[in-house]
Amino acid sequence: MAATARYPLPDLKSLPEDIQARIAQVQEKAGFIPNVFLAFARRPAEWRAFFAYHDALMEREESSLSKAEREMIVTVTSAHNECLYCVVAHGALVRIYDKAPMLADQLAVNYRKANISARQRAMLDFAMKVCTRSQEVDDADFEALQAHGFDDEDIWDIAAITAFFGLSNRMASFAGMQPNEEFYLMGRIPRSKA
Amino acid sequence: MAATARYPLPDLKSLPEDIQARIAQVQEKAGFIPNVFLAFARRPAEWRAFFAYHDALMEREESSLSKAEREMIVTVTSAHNECLYCVVAHGALVRIYDKAPMLADQLAVNYRKANISARQRAMLDFAMKVCTRSQEVDDADFEALQAHGFDDEDIWDIAAITAFFGLSNRMASFAGMQPNEEFYLMGRIPRSKA
Amino acid sequence: MAATARYPLPDLKSLPEDIQARIAQVQEKAGFIPNVFLAFARRPAEWRAFFAYHDALMEREESSLSKAEREMIVTVTSAHNECLYCVVAHGALVRIYDKAPMLADQLAVNYRKANISARQRAMLDFAMKVCTRSQEVDDADFEALQAHGFDDEDIWDIAAITAFFGLSNRMASFAGMQPNEEFYLMGRIPRSKA
Amino acid sequence: MAATARYPLPDLKSLPEDIQARIAQVQEKAGFIPNVFLAFARRPAEWRAFFAYHDALMEREESSLSKAEREMIVTVTSAHNECLYCVVAHGALVRIYDKAPMLADQLAVNYRKANISARQRAMLDFAMKVCTRSQEVDDADFEALQAHGFDDEDIWDIAAITAFFGLSNRMASFAGMQPNEEFYLMGRIPRSKA
Amino acid sequence: MAATARYPLPDLKSLPEDIQARIAQVQEKAGFIPNVFLAFARRPAEWRAFFAYHDALMEREESSLSKAEREMIVTVTSAHNECLYCVVAHGALVRIYDKAPMLADQLAVNYRKANISARQRAMLDFAMKVCTRSQEVDDADFEALQAHGFDDEDIWDIAAITAFFGLSNRMASFAGMQPNEEFYLMGRIPRSKA
Amino acid sequence: MAATARYPLPDLKSLPEDIQARIAQVQEKAGFIPNVFLAFARRPAEWRAFFAYHDALMEREESSLSKAEREMIVTVTSAHNECLYCVVAHGALVRIYDKAPMLADQLAVNYRKANISARQRAMLDFAMKVCTRSQEVDDADFEALQAHGFDDEDIWDIAAITAFFGLSNRMASFAGMQPNEEFYLMGRIPRSKA
Repeated sequence: MAATARYPLPDLKSLPEDIQARIAQVQEKAGFIPNVFLAFARRPAEWRAFFAYHDALMEREESSLSKAEREMIVTVTSAHNECLYCVVAHGALVRIYDKAPMLADQLAVNYRKANISARQRAMLDFAMKVCTRSQEVDDADFEALQAHGFDDEDIWDIAAITAFFGLSNRMASFAGMQPNEEFYLMGRIPRSKA
Repeated sequence: MAATARYPLPDLKSLPEDIQARIAQVQEKAGFIPNVFLAFARRPAEWRAFFAYHDALMEREESSLSKAEREMIVTVTSAHNECLYCVVAHGALVRIYDKAPMLADQLAVNYRKANISARQRAMLDFAMKVCTRSQEVDDADFEALQAHGFDDEDIWDIAAITAFFGLSNRMASFAGMQPNEEFYLMGRIPRSKA
Repeated sequence: MAATARYPLPDLKSLPEDIQARIAQVQEKAGFIPNVFLAFARRPAEWRAFFAYHDALMEREESSLSKAEREMIVTVTSAHNECLYCVVAHGALVRIYDKAPMLADQLAVNYRKANISARQRAMLDFAMKVCTRSQEVDDADFEALQAHGFDDEDIWDIAAITAFFGLSNRMASFAGMQPNEEFYLMGRIPRSKA
Repeated sequence: MAATARYPLPDLKSLPEDIQARIAQVQEKAGFIPNVFLAFARRPAEWRAFFAYHDALMEREESSLSKAEREMIVTVTSAHNECLYCVVAHGALVRIYDKAPMLADQLAVNYRKANISARQRAMLDFAMKVCTRSQEVDDADFEALQAHGFDDEDIWDIAAITAFFGLSNRMASFAGMQPNEEFYLMGRIPRSKA
Repeated sequence: MAATARYPLPDLKSLPEDIQARIAQVQEKAGFIPNVFLAFARRPAEWRAFFAYHDALMEREESSLSKAEREMIVTVTSAHNECLYCVVAHGALVRIYDKAPMLADQLAVNYRKANISARQRAMLDFAMKVCTRSQEVDDADFEALQAHGFDDEDIWDIAAITAFFGLSNRMASFAGMQPNEEFYLMGRIPRSKA
Repeated sequence: MAATARYPLPDLKSLPEDIQARIAQVQEKAGFIPNVFLAFARRPAEWRAFFAYHDALMEREESSLSKAEREMIVTVTSAHNECLYCVVAHGALVRIYDKAPMLADQLAVNYRKANISARQRAMLDFAMKVCTRSQEVDDADFEALQAHGFDDEDIWDIAAITAFFGLSNRMASFAGMQPNEEFYLMGRIPRSKA
């Protein structure tokens, strides 16, 4: 059916310089421009806020969550929200950061059966509660996480990543954003073989 | 039970200057500091991204949605997500912007029975679909909105506001944010009487 | 959209004398006739049964639930059922009986975040179970309530009030009953100021 | 597990005279005392209101719904709410009033597959909407019923019977009311054979 | 509405010999041909697999579940899936195997209120979890069953019967299969009386 | 957490000859033994019925559904039921049969956004209805499929495949069956490159 995005992607040249610069940087690192960078760029002010928020959460140095763990939260949240772009793109990051070629698929289908630690399971259970029933979060949820060594800053990280990608999921799905083909295979094959 | 926030509010003086400046500006206009400005300020990078995103959507000049209509979307989304802070704070803004002292309560309980136009009803039906089933948004939803005169930019506005406040709702609920007392009564009484 | 009731309100003069008398009494006390008294009066036999049931539960002298607590149950049940008339009208009674101008809004949005006692929280959790999953009520529910000092008569009161207003919510929503304007502001401002 | 009611049944002799009289009348007609008459009698004021409401709806002479149709609504609503007492007791009445020994079981399992008319199907679809989503009832629902010849009074009957038995279902389930054994077989065998 | 099956029943004579033989055997025992034997026979390969699977589970000699208990699982699963054929046909078997004329109706309406043992309640709770949330089955479910004396083979039996009749329910409902009239009354009356 | 199956896999040598033969055949073709063949073999009678049913549906020569289309139904049903084994194993078959390396991931996340034909979309919409609400299947569903050229035999195929894999999903999830590692990468890379 709908293999193309509902909103046309802007011409890269027409974008503000700061946005062009960031996109060039991403392209150099990844080898391609992930569609979200172009899809949101039609509205520069929203683009800047979105990526500033993204970076504040996903590249926060002090976080005790590993980058792979943060991407696990994104993958599970996005799978629940059935967001094609985010599951495919962030599943790729799970595979790469964790050097775990099968993990993203497990998380996307049923994180309860994935090959993760008990601590990561607790992290994802809480993310799912924030994703689906944030109004019911209470002391018992904090205690369950503290029993696994998470402190209040970690818990904020889990909740905020879940909430932010809830936004991202809704935007990508509503706008018909499709994942770049490159994402599907990333991290599935050892570099030496690929 | 929990009448106080789970995360302590930071001391205003300890915050970065740009954040202090914005807060001072808000305080002057509103007469008090809405709790969200302090609650999120413990993480300045997230604070800046959050309010930049907020302003990009809620103060966008070119939007054909009125400010009252945008706050209607926030109130209905927040009511569905059972976010106490957002329903009370943004319900106050609905009352003020629309000079409609009863409308916010109607929207928060059951927007289908609220005293709004057919165009606004279509706008809120779409917001609810983005809020609850964004993965199912399709051409028919766009056509239903176009029949009421909404164009693709308007539809982006509706979806983005819904998605952004889905983030806000989850953060406020998870962190136990309470609305300021001032919000409860704002816009309920004609200024001459108050 | 629909700001008026689907069924026309009967002329007060045309009603049976006992109904007129009760309505006159309510009007004198409240200063206006709550719409439910007229909306249901088109069917006198149902009207009489409805208000007899209402009074048996809500004005039962021996109940250990305070009048404010009974109205809390009504407000939370009605919010779940998204009944505009009942949330607005009975929220007003919560404010008046409990001298708590903000409590009704808290209960209507998310009773888990409302400023209530642990005992009241248990009462409302049980009411929500009767409202949404009465078929699953079992011994554990009774024990949870007994731990807060509720006895079997109190538990009957909670269940019966929840069940009765489930009826009321469905009737008001189906018939498009709108709350009187007076309810919206009742109990929000100290009498001295109003 | 729980084959007996949670609340003890009162002694018949201890009940107010009007309640004793009605019960005697029912017992004479049915050959036994349906448990609901005793279970609710521990609270005479509620008992009187409950049965007055019941009679106002279920024995309303002017209604264009047949008695069997009214019991169909009760059976379908009670099946959705998983109320054992009401499905078994009112299923018996469906069998008797409609001389249809298999109909109640069909309605209780899946009314969409029951041997009923298109008009009855529309009636039950509306009852299910009032039962599960009364907040969404709108003009289209009224029009669908009018297309089958139902007028506004009929629609009120359907909604009110559904709402009233929603109350009854919650009370019976919460209180652990068990159906009398007699109900299970009533109307299943032609009188000549029984 | 639809009192007949959507797919025409094949002529018995036209069926392969092994299928005719089995059907003749069933007819001799039951006194009639249950519709499922004819409805599925239009596709002999599927018919053979279906009944082979059925027999492997329902007539497994080594199982520690009684035949009545296995039919209880079928009845409760089928009631949840609202499958008219299966509730009526297998409810009849519950009545016959357990000599319990009222049990099937109790199970079909609300198994939590049925007159069964605590062990049977645990069995049915697990069946309902496999029926509705198999992706969430975990160690705690196995432990709850082990506490009632079920071993891993029993648990496999419960899960497999639930899963198999989930298939059966979907086929019967989709194809509009109607239960034979004979099933409705089977096991309700002591043989001496019938 | 649980990366191994809850039930120990039987020793291949201990299995009945017919089962060993089929397994050897599969192993030769695929290069490995898919876990389902061993996991179910602990119960030979159920194994034989399961694979006979599978073959009757998935290898039915007369079907107008292509093998890839049948595997699409399996993938979408299994994704809804969150069955890790089936999504990974049958997703691999979608990729291979359809020479579409990205399609299975699209179907597993959100089939509404997958790169499929309108006819296939209708096929999957119906499969999802049988999967989640088989009790509501009615004439309108058949008509929607007929509009895309599906006849009654095709519709039976869609329903039966959905129903059969609903069984398979529940068994695999309950028993903690894990997909073989080989499945994750199958069909993702052109043979020439692999």
